[in-house]
Amino acid sequence: MPTRHSSAVWEGTLREGKGTYSGESGTLGGKYSFGTRFGDEKGSNPEELLAAAEAACFSMALSGALERNGTPSTRVETAAACTVEKQEIGFTVTTMKLTVRVTAPGITNEAFQAIAAATKDGCPISRAIKGNVALEIDAALE
Amino acid sequence: MPTRHSSAVWEGTLREGKGTYSGESGTLGGKYSFGTRFGDEKGSNPEELLAAAEAACFSMALSGALERNGTPSTRVETAAACTVEKQEIGFTVTTMKLTVRVTAPGITNEAFQAIAAATKDGCPISRAIKGNVALEIDAALE
Repeated sequence: MPTRHSSAVWEGTLREGKGTYSGESGTLGGKYSFGTRFGDEKGSNPEELLAAAEAACFSMALSGALERNGTPSTRVETAAACTVEKQEIGFTVTTMKLTVRVTAPGITNEAFQAIAAATKDGCPISRAIKGNVALEIDAALE
Repeated sequence: MPTRHSSAVWEGTLREGKGTYSGESGTLGGKYSFGTRFGDEKGSNPEELLAAAEAACFSMALSGALERNGTPSTRVETAAACTVEKQEIGFTVTTMKLTVRVTAPGITNEAFQAIAAATKDGCPISRAIKGNVALEIDAALE
């Protein structure tokens, strides 16, 4: 199995400094700052990256699970919302909410909901954050 | 505190299908596939995104911690290596290794190592994965 590499550089102080991040694939990278993380400045931040990891992992995993069920999907769309709260210990990622819309002919809603819930708990990125971040799901067939 | 949003779409089967992901900031997005995740095809994957989240979060957090110590850094560079292993439960993110190089005039190595170790355990993305993914660190002053 592969090991995947990314890196980040931060120069300067927390509030006035500036950061850059990049992934080894060459398809990922950009600037970030206190303002892009905790404010509304344009740019990415670790929570958006974590949400992207979860959305990408979940969509792929749900597709695989529906296929193994004999009811393959033609499309899985997942929106991931990653909420950060200020707690006594510091800024904490508290919730990852998945809103999932799926086209999968021939599956009942009951069977779909069970598979979606199992994937929410079982996909690799979900398992990387479970117990620390509350995973929520709103899944529907289209 | 903000909630950050990303999304992903997967079309087709697990091995033959294709995915796209994007973040709401508009600075993040691309294609992914079984080949970019588990093989060597060019493109990102959830583990690279998770590594980017960790590297970005850790670099920023260590800068803040060194500043609070009265020994601000001018540069923090963090490489994050995210390892996936095939386990009985499925593909599992087992280790996130951080290689950290820091310019911070006036701090002893002993104090630096303590702050780096505390940041490895305490930054928000580290806390999101802790207990599930082994966090390792190799930190040095430059």
